[in-house]
Amino acid sequence: MSMNRLCELIIEKQNPTVMGLDPKLDYIPERIKTAAREQYPDDQFAAAADALLMFNKELMDATADLVAAVKPQVAYYEMYGWQGMRAYAETISYAKEKGFYVIADVKRNDIGSTAEAYSAAYLGKTKLFDGEYAPFEADSATVNPYLGSDGVDPFIKDCKKFDKSIFMLVKTSNPSSGELQDKETGGETIYSMMARATMKYGEGTVGEHGYSCCGAVVGATYTAQLTELRELAPQTFFLVPGYGAQGAGAADVAGAFDKKGLGAVINSSRGIMCAWQKSEGDDVGAEARKEVIRMRDELLGALGGKIG
Amino acid sequence: MSMNRLCELIIEKQNPTVMGLDPKLDYIPERIKTAAREQYPDDQFAAAADALLMFNKELMDATADLVAAVKPQVAYYEMYGWQGMRAYAETISYAKEKGFYVIADVKRNDIGSTAEAYSAAYLGKTKLFDGEYAPFEADSATVNPYLGSDGVDPFIKDCKKFDKSIFMLVKTSNPSSGELQDKETGGETIYSMMARATMKYGEGTVGEHGYSCCGAVVGATYTAQLTELRELAPQTFFLVPGYGAQGAGAADVAGAFDKKGLGAVINSSRGIMCAWQKSEGDDVGAEARKEVIRMRDELLGALGGKIG
Repeated sequence: MSMNRLCELIIEKQNPTVMGLDPKLDYIPERIKTAAREQYPDDQFAAAADALLMFNKELMDATADLVAAVKPQVAYYEMYGWQGMRAYAETISYAKEKGFYVIADVKRNDIGSTAEAYSAAYLGKTKLFDGEYAPFEADSATVNPYLGSDGVDPFIKDCKKFDKSIFMLVKTSNPSSGELQDKETGGETIYSMMARATMKYGEGTVGEHGYSCCGAVVGATYTAQLTELRELAPQTFFLVPGYGAQGAGAADVAGAFDKKGLGAVINSSRGIMCAWQKSEGDDVGAEARKEVIRMRDELLGALGGKIG
Repeated sequence: MSMNRLCELIIEKQNPTVMGLDPKLDYIPERIKTAAREQYPDDQFAAAADALLMFNKELMDATADLVAAVKPQVAYYEMYGWQGMRAYAETISYAKEKGFYVIADVKRNDIGSTAEAYSAAYLGKTKLFDGEYAPFEADSATVNPYLGSDGVDPFIKDCKKFDKSIFMLVKTSNPSSGELQDKETGGETIYSMMARATMKYGEGTVGEHGYSCCGAVVGATYTAQLTELRELAPQTFFLVPGYGAQGAGAADVAGAFDKKGLGAVINSSRGIMCAWQKSEGDDVGAEARKEVIRMRDELLGALGGKIG
């Protein structure tokens, strides 16, 4: 019910990287796409979904010993229809077999009864005919806070029940995030207010390594805010997107970590997934592995060489 | 690229009701569940998904001549896994065959490139191997504004390209919606700021009936805000949840409409879906139809007997 399982994996791998699995067809080599089309010659959505899964498996096979967590971004599966969602479910299952901590990047949000349904989908279980079953069995999910505590509490409840975690959107990495999140109300910014809320949601769930089940999404592209929020919410683990393709480097994210080098995972999606496109060939796994090692060494360097 | 198609259907049916399709297994009669289990004896998720679809079809068959729009809430499909998402796709297809305007209640949100993927999934098209195809071909989608314009613009772009619409969350119907949405910043509430934003997103897309492609979600449970926002955003069509099971009645929502009785659709989910549970039998369609007529008459009464 805390971030302990994630912390243990980060310490074991000595790597605070989370590998984003956002597999558009454009990122996938021809050999995989051809194989998928041969498998499903009459169903393009099925072929696309199969290509996503094969691509993800190559990425995971090549990095499972190095990377603690994966973050499949569900939008890139939904855009391939229900077959894409099947690939999402199969990606999560495969990731768990390989030992990754799985963060379902779904940014779900709704009123209480509906938030319960979303939480059942990604963290909890759904009552079927003769028992309860997990539909997409992730370890963690991202959650949008616009609807207030009604939309977050059901996820926290499942975190406690099933030893899961969430990352609530606090300060997102995109250029327009300030339009709402930087606004001041009652003498503080919305993102500060939300960071304080994560501390409250996480109360009573702080684990051995000092972090609660309620993390926060804080973009690598906003360096000053990362450091500010690290101090404001010391028990809130950060999921930090924006490294690599979005422009931030290791120095930008250093402020997200605590003194032991814990407290944050840094996401790279395109940087790892598309590394093969910068090479001569199409060895997705080998090129991803090289980039993972480069990124790990860069981050570990910024953290003084050791985590935990 | 406006709300015109929705307005035309509301005028034709003389009914501002949107029927929420949020089909949990608990809401479905035994005869449907038994038939679904016989169809898929070895796959509970497939059986559940089949039950959802059969239930939705009975609801739609019984009300297609009376109701302008349906709003399938995707959380209640995601909780049944990828098979649930298949039922979601099939529900949307069936609704369109029956002539309903389909509002995908997905509350999606993300950074720009990812918002594009979400928009492709619900409003636009996805590039596959030999062309572009629509994954879940709805007419409209709900969108969460926490990330600012980066997360909304891709949807607006698809609204213009494919003659679709969105409803952006402004003031939601749940009890805790004020925790963020009622906060004041720069002399106005967050929900007012968001209502003004919908006017801006909709610029240049106002149709014959006076409404742009960018609508707003405003809860029936906040009567004063409904009236306030109707004045503040005269070109913004409202999607109003909270009627019926959440506690609001026709008098509460009257302020959401313009002088012609247009400007809002009022959602009822459980009130219609579960009407059969208050009857002796299990005729889902007949009981839903009775409730739709009762609700239509109540709303039409509050609007002076005529829309348009």
